[in-house]
Amino acid sequence: MQTYRIGPDMDDGFIDLIKRRRSIREYTQEDVSDAAVDTIVEAGSWAPSGLNNQPWRFVVVRSKEIREKLARCTRYGKIILNAPVLIPILLNKAVSYDRTKDTQAIGACIQNMLLALCSLGLGGVWLGEILKNKEEVRIVLDLPEELELMAVLAIGHPGHRNQSSDREPIGNLILKRI
Amino acid sequence: MQTYRIGPDMDDGFIDLIKRRRSIREYTQEDVSDAAVDTIVEAGSWAPSGLNNQPWRFVVVRSKEIREKLARCTRYGKIILNAPVLIPILLNKAVSYDRTKDTQAIGACIQNMLLALCSLGLGGVWLGEILKNKEEVRIVLDLPEELELMAVLAIGHPGHRNQSSDREPIGNLILKRI
Repeated sequence: MQTYRIGPDMDDGFIDLIKRRRSIREYTQEDVSDAAVDTIVEAGSWAPSGLNNQPWRFVVVRSKEIREKLARCTRYGKIILNAPVLIPILLNKAVSYDRTKDTQAIGACIQNMLLALCSLGLGGVWLGEILKNKEEVRIVLDLPEELELMAVLAIGHPGHRNQSSDREPIGNLILKRI
Repeated sequence: MQTYRIGPDMDDGFIDLIKRRRSIREYTQEDVSDAAVDTIVEAGSWAPSGLNNQPWRFVVVRSKEIREKLARCTRYGKIILNAPVLIPILLNKAVSYDRTKDTQAIGACIQNMLLALCSLGLGGVWLGEILKNKEEVRIVLDLPEELELMAVLAIGHPGHRNQSSDREPIGNLILKRI
């Protein structure tokens, strides 16, 4: 496995941004501005989608009461309680035309959001385990049935930056060159 | 709809990179180096995945004979014939644990690859329509059944850069702020 550790001397090239993005699960008390949230959502919206159907929808959650209800839907409730902002991401099934392609587009959208928040100096984590209770989340958020929960992003100012991660070397991932 | 047109005076910030990425379907005769291909695949590999299961696998196709066979699998065969490099992206079902989450991870991986190739000055397009013949593609590539085709990236030096695209304004995408 290749390890890429975050260092203070890293240049700001795009490939570095991709590598230094981490799942940040601890946040300071500092709030996240509406302007930052809008930039993150806008970045997500510029992902590609099949037929440009833009199947993503977003909710911005700051309410402590709502966060407490969402925290009960996942074993990662502590993250949800500590993050100043949550962004549930939903698939608009009304415009969906292919489950696989629309789900991929949502993944591309979320990756744009993660990279954008990292580029803004924020930290965040993509929460997927909560999907086991996606219907309950939809009801807590008071959304119609045509919206299917795809993920929740937790966002805040990073409580630390000392996390490493690893990946398979590309020699193991490229099956053949033909 | 918001339109974002590529201009020569654009700064190189990350949010701009996200916005100026386009689906490029026409390429010059110039080849794409192995080093560039490796950078693109490595960028893809640094996407997040559930449980860090890294379900993506890649094939690098330059062979004219293989491209001709693949071109017959899609109505976008002309793009496949003209692109100097194709990268079919596959889901390794042997490590897959959740169809939705793994499909999202593949989408995040592809978006990293598209952003990386754009940052390198290359052009590419995410081909999805070819999935209608994913079994045929798997056989052309001589891959085992546990590998499921998820997309094909066509990559080359851009034949033009004058394309615009548009997105819904975020006010239409953020359903509520609570």
